[in-house]
Amino acid sequence: MTTPDMSAALRALAMDAVQRARSGHPGAPMGMAEMATALWGRHLKIDPADPRWPDRDRFVLSNGHASMLLYALLHLSGHDLSIEDLKAFRQLGSRTPGHPEVGVTPGVETTTGPLGQGLANAVGLALAEKRLAAEFNRDGHAVVDHRTWVFAGDGCLMEGLSQEAISLAGVWRLGHLALLYDDNGISIDGPVAGWFGDDTAARFRACGWSVIGPLDGHDVEALDAALRQVRATGRDEAPTLVICRTCIGQGSPNRAGTAKAHGEPLGDEEIALTRAAIGWPHPPFEVPPAVRAAWDRREAGAAAHRDWRLRFEAYRSAFPEAAAEFERRVMRDERPAGFDASTAAAPPGAAAAPAVATRKASQQVLARLGPALPELIGGSADLTGSNLTDFPGCGALLAGRIDGRHVHYGVREFGMAAVMNGLALHGGFIPYGGTFLTFSDYSRNAIRMAALMRLRVVHVLTHDSIGLGEDGPTHQPVEHAASLRLIPGLEVWRPCDEAETAAAWSAALQGPPRPSALLLSRQNLPAQSRDAQQQAAIARGGYVLSDRPAARAVLLATGSEVDLAMRAQQRLDVLGCPVRVVSLPSMTLFDRQEAAWRDAVLGRGLPRIGIEAGVRAAWGGYGCAAVLGIDTFGESGPAAALFEHFGLTVEALVDQVQQVLARPEPSEAAS
Amino acid sequence: MTTPDMSAALRALAMDAVQRARSGHPGAPMGMAEMATALWGRHLKIDPADPRWPDRDRFVLSNGHASMLLYALLHLSGHDLSIEDLKAFRQLGSRTPGHPEVGVTPGVETTTGPLGQGLANAVGLALAEKRLAAEFNRDGHAVVDHRTWVFAGDGCLMEGLSQEAISLAGVWRLGHLALLYDDNGISIDGPVAGWFGDDTAARFRACGWSVIGPLDGHDVEALDAALRQVRATGRDEAPTLVICRTCIGQGSPNRAGTAKAHGEPLGDEEIALTRAAIGWPHPPFEVPPAVRAAWDRREAGAAAHRDWRLRFEAYRSAFPEAAAEFERRVMRDERPAGFDASTAAAPPGAAAAPAVATRKASQQVLARLGPALPELIGGSADLTGSNLTDFPGCGALLAGRIDGRHVHYGVREFGMAAVMNGLALHGGFIPYGGTFLTFSDYSRNAIRMAALMRLRVVHVLTHDSIGLGEDGPTHQPVEHAASLRLIPGLEVWRPCDEAETAAAWSAALQGPPRPSALLLSRQNLPAQSRDAQQQAAIARGGYVLSDRPAARAVLLATGSEVDLAMRAQQRLDVLGCPVRVVSLPSMTLFDRQEAAWRDAVLGRGLPRIGIEAGVRAAWGGYGCAAVLGIDTFGESGPAAALFEHFGLTVEALVDQVQQVLARPEPSEAAS
Repeated sequence: MTTPDMSAALRALAMDAVQRARSGHPGAPMGMAEMATALWGRHLKIDPADPRWPDRDRFVLSNGHASMLLYALLHLSGHDLSIEDLKAFRQLGSRTPGHPEVGVTPGVETTTGPLGQGLANAVGLALAEKRLAAEFNRDGHAVVDHRTWVFAGDGCLMEGLSQEAISLAGVWRLGHLALLYDDNGISIDGPVAGWFGDDTAARFRACGWSVIGPLDGHDVEALDAALRQVRATGRDEAPTLVICRTCIGQGSPNRAGTAKAHGEPLGDEEIALTRAAIGWPHPPFEVPPAVRAAWDRREAGAAAHRDWRLRFEAYRSAFPEAAAEFERRVMRDERPAGFDASTAAAPPGAAAAPAVATRKASQQVLARLGPALPELIGGSADLTGSNLTDFPGCGALLAGRIDGRHVHYGVREFGMAAVMNGLALHGGFIPYGGTFLTFSDYSRNAIRMAALMRLRVVHVLTHDSIGLGEDGPTHQPVEHAASLRLIPGLEVWRPCDEAETAAAWSAALQGPPRPSALLLSRQNLPAQSRDAQQQAAIARGGYVLSDRPAARAVLLATGSEVDLAMRAQQRLDVLGCPVRVVSLPSMTLFDRQEAAWRDAVLGRGLPRIGIEAGVRAAWGGYGCAAVLGIDTFGESGPAAALFEHFGLTVEALVDQVQQVLARPEPSEAAS
Repeated sequence: MTTPDMSAALRALAMDAVQRARSGHPGAPMGMAEMATALWGRHLKIDPADPRWPDRDRFVLSNGHASMLLYALLHLSGHDLSIEDLKAFRQLGSRTPGHPEVGVTPGVETTTGPLGQGLANAVGLALAEKRLAAEFNRDGHAVVDHRTWVFAGDGCLMEGLSQEAISLAGVWRLGHLALLYDDNGISIDGPVAGWFGDDTAARFRACGWSVIGPLDGHDVEALDAALRQVRATGRDEAPTLVICRTCIGQGSPNRAGTAKAHGEPLGDEEIALTRAAIGWPHPPFEVPPAVRAAWDRREAGAAAHRDWRLRFEAYRSAFPEAAAEFERRVMRDERPAGFDASTAAAPPGAAAAPAVATRKASQQVLARLGPALPELIGGSADLTGSNLTDFPGCGALLAGRIDGRHVHYGVREFGMAAVMNGLALHGGFIPYGGTFLTFSDYSRNAIRMAALMRLRVVHVLTHDSIGLGEDGPTHQPVEHAASLRLIPGLEVWRPCDEAETAAAWSAALQGPPRPSALLLSRQNLPAQSRDAQQQAAIARGGYVLSDRPAARAVLLATGSEVDLAMRAQQRLDVLGCPVRVVSLPSMTLFDRQEAAWRDAVLGRGLPRIGIEAGVRAAWGGYGCAAVLGIDTFGESGPAAALFEHFGLTVEALVDQVQQVLARPEPSEAAS
C-alpha cells in the first residue's frame, strides 16, 4: 500500500459519487487529495468510533462544496458512514447531502457551504479550545489539548468574513489553529488572477499569522513536514497558514486546472481517462483491502482516546470538582443543578425599577446569570456600552487576556456570529453577542446557519426601533424584527420589560438547543404588573397582559409598544370602550403553542389591532383588522418626535380602535 | 487667517452642534479636523454652487458618524447649507441628520453609517471614473478626470467588507482612489489594540495599494505633502492609503484620546476648556469672516467648473456623438430615445422557448438590453455561468481589462452590492450583479442602503428555491423572497417565464430610480400564454393569468409555482371545480396598485390559496384561506424529489383547494 493509492482512493470516490449523483463538485476533492492524505492519514487526532470525543482535533472543510472529500475521509477512516451512504450522495434523506451538515453525518464538525463561514467557525472552535484549556488544564494535566484544522480555498479567502476571522485569530494568538489553503488559482469564473490579486501570505502575516509555503500541494511528504511543523506550534503562538499550491481536478487529464472541473460531473469518458491516469483500475465504490487498511484510523484513534481517558481519570482524582464541571459543560452540555427560570428572574420582592431599557434589563439579568452559568461567554461587536452585554466580574477577553468572559469582537458582526457558532459547536460554551439590531443584516447568514445547525447561541440585538432616535435611518431597524422571524428555527424575542427580558433569556438557555435573538430597546420602558399566572405565561411567547370584561377589541403589541397599548387601554376605558391587551414577546414561540392557547389569548370574534414599531407585514399571520407600524425607513430625530411623526402614539391607537369598531361589517385581514 | 483656525472652526462647529443636539459624535470630527483642512482646504475639486458637476472629486465619509465634520465642511466651503441647518443637527426634518444621507444634504455623495460600506461605495465611484474615462476620454480631451477620496476609521477597516473593497480596488488598479485612514487607535470599546492587531499598511500593500505614512494626522503640511503625492498618481497606478495618526477628540483636554470622546456630547464644561485649548473664543455657531473667507471654495470651484465646461465644449466640437451620449448618461441619467418596455421583450412573433429557466430568460433579455443600453454594467460574484449575467459581446471587466461590461467581482457578494451602489451614485451606469438568492444574506445591508438611497441597481438572484436541488439547505432560499419584500422601497420580482422576466427587467430600468431584486429559477419553466392586455398587466405586479367563468377559488402564485397553479387549474376543471389563477410576479409592486386593480385581480368573496416555494408568511397580506409553502429549511436532493417531499405538487394543491371549498364556513386568514 502506498500513499499515492490513498490519494487515488479519495479522487476515485469523489469523482464516482459525483457522477452517480449527476451533480456535485469533483474538482476540489481531487485537488485536495494529498492535503487530505497528509492530514487525515498522518496527523489528525480523531477516534472514528466516537466522533464526539471532546479532545479530538476539529476538522473544518470551509470550502464545503468539496463535501465528497470529507465523506470519503469519514468512510475510509472508519466512521459510521458506509459505502452505501457514499452511493447515496446528494439524494434526499441520505447522510451525504450536497454540503456537509453537522448532525446529519457523524464526524462533520460544522455545516459549510456559505463561503468564509467554516473558517470563522474554526476560529471559534480554536478559541473554545484555548479558553477551555486556560480554564480547565492544570500543571501536568492537559485534558484540553487539541487542534483545529481548516481546509479553505480562494472563495473563502475572497469573502470579507475571512478577514474578520483571521484578524481575530491573529489577535487572540490561536496557535492551535491551522489553515491549509487550497491555492489552486481557479474559481468558478476562471483563473482568479483576474479578480483576486492579494498576496495572501503577506495578508496573513499582516494579521499576525505564521505562514508556511507556498509548497507543492500534491507532495504528501512536503505537506507532512509542514504539518509536523504546525504540530510543534504552541497554543499561545501565532496561528499558521499553510499555502498548498494545487491543481483543481488533479488527475483528470482534460479538466484538471480548469474551472470546468469545479461544479459538474466529469462524465464517463473523462472518468475512465482519469482512472488510467491516477492508476486506479478498481470499479466505482470499490476500495481494495490494502488501501482500506492504510486509511483505517480506528486503532490509532482508540489508542489516543484511551490515553486521554486515562489522563482524564488522573485529572479527576486530582481535581474532582473541575472534572465534574468539565463533564457537565463539555461532555453532557447540561445546565448546573438547580438552574431554572428563577435564576434569570429578579429575586422575589425586588423592587421593580420604575422604567428601564430592556437592554439594561438584559444586563441586570446577565448579572444574575453570569455567576450561575460559567459556560456563558458574551461579547459585543464593539458596542459593549450600548448593547450592555457585559456584567460585573465578567472580565474582558481580548489580546493577551484569553480568560475573560466578555469577548471584544471589534467591529465584526458577521465574524462575531460565525465565531459564536464555532464556540457553540465545540461544546463547553453558550455564546451570546451583541450589536445593533440593524446590523444583524451583516451577520444574517451566520444567524441562519445557527438555526440550521440548531446551535444554542443568543444574539443580543439592541436599539431595536426608531426609539434609538437621532442616529437615523441607517441605524433604525424597521424590517428586521419581521425579517428575523422568518428564519426557520430562530426564536425571536422582543420583550417589553425586565420580566419578559428575563423570561426570554431563560428560554434561550433551556429546552432544545436553538438560536435566539433578543431585540432590546435603547429607551426606558416601564415595568408591567403581572400575577403569577401571567408571569409563567411569558414562556408561551404571548399572553393576556391586561383584560377587561366585555372587551370589544384586542390590542396586540410587542416590546416598546406594549406600554403604548396599556396606556391606550386606559384611555379607552375612560371612553367606555374596554379592550384586551395581549403582549407577544415572542411571536415565533407563540405560533408554536397549541391552538387552544392561541385562541384563548387572541380571542375569537373580536377585532384585533396590532402595533409594533416596524413593518406592518409582521402581523400577517394574526388576522388583524388594523395595524399600526412603519412601512418606510426611519428618520433622524429625538425618539419622542419620531414616535409622534410615525403615528405610534396612544392617540393614534385609540383612534384606530375606534375606527375599527365603527366599521359597519367585520373587516377583512389587514392590508 | 491661519490654517489652525480653519481646523479649529471644524472642531468648534462639531462639538457645539453635538452639544446642542444633546446627541452625536464629536470625537471623530475633532480628530480628523486637520485631515479635512488639508483635503478640503487645498485639494478637493468641487464646485459648491453645483454639487452635481460630473467631474467633481467625490468625497466619502465612510465613518459616517463623523457627520458633523462633513456638514461643517459643506457649510464653510459654500454649499447650500446654512448655519441654521447646522443648528438643526439631528432634528427631525433637518438637512443635517445623524448620519450623512445622499439626497438630503447637498454635497453628500453617499449615505454612510453602516461601517465599511462608504469605502466600498468609493471603490464603485472610482471604478465608475476609470470606466467612464476609458469610454469617453479622447487624446487631449480628458472630460473625465476626477478623484475619489475616502475618510475611514478603524471600524471600517475591521469590517470584512473593507477587505473585499480594497482587494477589488487593488486588482482594478484604481489610481484615482485614495483612502485617508483616521488611525486613532480607539474604537467604542476602547483602545483597539485589544481586538485589532492588523498591520494595516502591510495588509493594504498585500492587496496592491501604495501606502503613505503613518504620518502625523494633525500636521496639515505633512498631510498636504501626502495629498500632493496622491494627486500625482495616475489613474492606472495603485490606489493609495494615507495613514494619518490622529487623536480622537483632539483639542478636548480631558476626553482626547479616549473612547469617551466618541459618541456623546462633551458637555458645557469640557467645551469651554476645549475652546480655550484650541484658541477659539467665538460663541457657538459663530465663525469670524476671515475664517469663513479662508474656507470659502466657491470662487476656486467655479473656476475649475468653468475650465471643465470649456474643455467639454471643445470635446463636443470634436466628438459630438460622444458628448451627447455623455450628457444623456452621466448628466441627465436618461434612457436612450426609443427605449421602452419592448426593448426587453422578445421580438413579436419570436417563438417562445418551450421551457426555459428564468435565469436563462434573463440572459436572453440581457442580450437585447445590452446593446441598447450602454450604461448597463453587469457582473457576478463568481457565479457568471450560474447567474447567467453575461451576454454576447459584454466583455469581461477584470484585472487589466477595465473596459468590459461584465464585472468579475469574485466571491464578494457584499462588496459587489456596495460597489454597485457606488457605480449608481457616480452616474453614467446602471449596475446589475448576480449571486444565489441565499447569499443575498451576505449583501443584505447594501441592498437596504440602495433602497434607502433610491439607487437604480438590479440584483439578479438566481437559484431561487429548493428547485436548485442537490446543493441542499445551505444554498436553498426559503425565507429570502419574503424577507427581501420587507425592505422598504426594494422592488422584488419573481417571474414565472420569459415574458415576466422581460417585464421585470423593463420595470427595473424605467420609472423612478429604485433598486430591484429579480429572483430567478435554476430550473426550466414553461412559457405561459397571454393576450395583449395580460402582457401589459405584468407591469402591475399581479394580474389574472387564467380565469374561469364561475370560478370558485383563486390560486395566487409566483415564479416557478405559477405553472403548478396552471396545471392544478386544468385538473380542477376536470373535477368540475373551476378556479382563477393569478400570477404575482411582484407583490411589492402589486401592493402599490390602486385598490380597484387589486380587488379586480384577487376577486372578492372567493377563497384564496397562495403557493410559493418559501415561507408561508409571505402571504400574510393576502387573506389566504390556505397557503402551500415551506416553513422549514430545505434538503439536499434532486429538485423533483424535493417538490414532492415538501408537498408542492399539483396533487397537493388540488387537494388543498378541495379542502378549502369543503369547509362549512368562510375560513379565517391563513395560519
